Amino acid sequence: MGLVVQKYGGSSVADAEGIKRVAKRVVDAKKNGNQVVVVVSAMGDTTDELIDLAEQVSPIPAGREFDMLLTAGERISMALLAMAIKNLGHEAQSFTGSQAGVITDSVHNKARIIDVTPGRIRTALDEGNIAIVAGFQGVSQDKKDITTLGRGGSDTTAVALAAALDAEVCEIYTDVDGVFTADPRVVKKARKIDWISSEDMLELAASGSKVLLHRCVEYARRYNIPIHVRSSFSGLRGTWVSNEPQGDQQVEHAIISGVAHDISEAKVTVVGVPDKPGEAAAIFRTIANAEVNIDMVVQNVSAASTGLTDISFTLPKSEGRKAIDALERQKGAIGFDSLRYDDQIAKISLVGAGMKTNPGVTAGFFEALSDAGVNIELISTSEIRISVVTRADDVIEAVRAVHTAFGLDSDSDEAVVYGGTGR
Amino acid sequence: MGLVVQKYGGSSVADAEGIKRVAKRVVDAKKNGNQVVVVVSAMGDTTDELIDLAEQVSPIPAGREFDMLLTAGERISMALLAMAIKNLGHEAQSFTGSQAGVITDSVHNKARIIDVTPGRIRTALDEGNIAIVAGFQGVSQDKKDITTLGRGGSDTTAVALAAALDAEVCEIYTDVDGVFTADPRVVKKARKIDWISSEDMLELAASGSKVLLHRCVEYARRYNIPIHVRSSFSGLRGTWVSNEPQGDQQVEHAIISGVAHDISEAKVTVVGVPDKPGEAAAIFRTIANAEVNIDMVVQNVSAASTGLTDISFTLPKSEGRKAIDALERQKGAIGFDSLRYDDQIAKISLVGAGMKTNPGVTAGFFEALSDAGVNIELISTSEIRISVVTRADDVIEAVRAVHTAFGLDSDSDEAVVYGGTGR
Repeated sequence: MGLVVQKYGGSSVADAEGIKRVAKRVVDAKKNGNQVVVVVSAMGDTTDELIDLAEQVSPIPAGREFDMLLTAGERISMALLAMAIKNLGHEAQSFTGSQAGVITDSVHNKARIIDVTPGRIRTALDEGNIAIVAGFQGVSQDKKDITTLGRGGSDTTAVALAAALDAEVCEIYTDVDGVFTADPRVVKKARKIDWISSEDMLELAASGSKVLLHRCVEYARRYNIPIHVRSSFSGLRGTWVSNEPQGDQQVEHAIISGVAHDISEAKVTVVGVPDKPGEAAAIFRTIANAEVNIDMVVQNVSAASTGLTDISFTLPKSEGRKAIDALERQKGAIGFDSLRYDDQIAKISLVGAGMKTNPGVTAGFFEALSDAGVNIELISTSEIRISVVTRADDVIEAVRAVHTAFGLDSDSDEAVVYGGTGR
Repeated sequence: MGLVVQKYGGSSVADAEGIKRVAKRVVDAKKNGNQVVVVVSAMGDTTDELIDLAEQVSPIPAGREFDMLLTAGERISMALLAMAIKNLGHEAQSFTGSQAGVITDSVHNKARIIDVTPGRIRTALDEGNIAIVAGFQGVSQDKKDITTLGRGGSDTTAVALAAALDAEVCEIYTDVDGVFTADPRVVKKARKIDWISSEDMLELAASGSKVLLHRCVEYARRYNIPIHVRSSFSGLRGTWVSNEPQGDQQVEHAIISGVAHDISEAKVTVVGVPDKPGEAAAIFRTIANAEVNIDMVVQNVSAASTGLTDISFTLPKSEGRKAIDALERQKGAIGFDSLRYDDQIAKISLVGAGMKTNPGVTAGFFEALSDAGVNIELISTSEIRISVVTRADDVIEAVRAVHTAFGLDSDSDEAVVYGGTGR
């Protein structure tokens, strides 16, 4: 008998009908002879509604109390799911993050899991129950306070439980059919990927693919947990993500896994930086002290005549103000001329382990962009990824051109089955 | 420095404005030099909405999961209240029933408190915090499962915490100004009671007064905790309930504390019961086995000619069907002729410790009803209470007549301040 962890997102349990549909699917997995652990998110817009209430009573919601508030959402969905399963004649028990043994650090609103001790889950399973666990939440090791895991926290809960329980697979149910070679809303001919390596998936997630978050894939890679991303609406086989392919998983040995794009970032250019040791360090220490996360960093060679260089980096638009303010305050100490801020950019990334051994990929990527008339502003590469920054206006054309150039277009004209919630 | 426990009901924290108003009141108590513990209910209709969701996914919500679901409501209100208090510049921490050390038995949906170990609350107070505690919930001693305390559970939480923390007073904030000599919606000239003994309050609660539930008053009497029932809207002094009057509490030495009425009950008459030992026992064992709670029980003397008697009892209308079915099944074994069920009744009760030493009270009560043309169907008395059952249609006239006859009418023509939520 295998052990399966299933995770259902907020859109899958948005209303009573959704919860009943998920209950049927869970019971099917149990009937197939599995022990089943289910991780659920809060219903639909519950979390947003709670955040709205918090903002009405206090402009700066406090960390500890904010977590106490938000965790009410999963409490509702998990209890309802357990009831719906019992109504189908199967035993189910729901557990909070704390009861499930999800132990975290004390950083409220974005806690990190430091241990999982699922003793109560194991007992519930051994007694024949389906175990329902609240995603996104845990309990702090030192203070025993309720914590939340931040964005994508429920996926991480699922993978962490799968690792602690030595599950065969962690199934992530969502409102799309799997991971695609590009965002199907942008590229109509995007293909669903049958299997992708954790390594490539990590790069896609870091490059703007929204299906799985980086943190969850990283956790799965470390503990060697296969993830199966699939639709909670269609029941079709989705995309397997694992360190190595298993069984009948089709490995196409494609050079390129997919094209990702991201329009959530802005670009900051620090102009006229003296080209001497310690300057870059001073800039990025300033940014780090402001607790701003940055993505790409590019430094051009300095003009020999002036001894000055420019340093550019990208960061989430939402953190732009903070970064600019922090740098302005240190302008004298760092010694640069000026700052330029640009939030009309897009990042386009080509990801695939095959590019390690195919030197023509970079050239092909740039040619495809050039043929589409797209200008490149920044370039950054890793061993299995090339990213460029372009004008935001060019992003759709750029992604389509690259997708076609690398032979990723689907032969089929069938419309992609894309969710069931209208999103 | 004193320690005060305050409890706010769902109508006081129905929306963000209500939560902010409660936060100000809590902070005022703190500024007055008190350590403050606040027990909150779920916001407004939250609990009803959750019950509705549960019914949509499963016709028979299961005990454990139902409690897990319902406790989400207090989690939301307590976290929001803590945020609102912090926003006023005071430190606050919220605690679930489990975190607050409210230990219960394992009877889901109507658990009983068996111990309160408020170590974390004490620590939070000693560190200068206002402690916010979720009402209505606890954790079971044996299984560590989340439990709820059933109707009036938040009041009981407040009194139990007040007892465990040795508080000076347990303030129950509600949407009325206190306990009245009769329901002010029925008797316009009802007077607010300044002080009432726990003993009289228990009888009023048992007789249909809704302001405080029997269970909460019973707990307060046992641990000698003074309760102050007051409005969260008006800020006026309300009604003190305690074993003995304290300080400046006006004790009027009135013979009668108040008139209560109850239209939620029905009457069952078991007709033609053989008048021999064991018959009444057989009837009420049948009722008890069906888990039906009964209130008044009256047996008339038997007619000598037949050797048969009638036994009548009252019970909540909602349990009528269950009781009738159980008795019908045992008809042969018990040996009665027939059953009569009547749900068009009202119970009117006169409560006051003074009646112990005033033999004219019973006569005066019956005279007042007779003068008002109200027929009496059943009579039941305790040492400090007389209750009668009448036709439901007569209830308003009966209550007003008795209220006037015992000199309880207010001299003032001022309208009673009655809530702020339109209820």
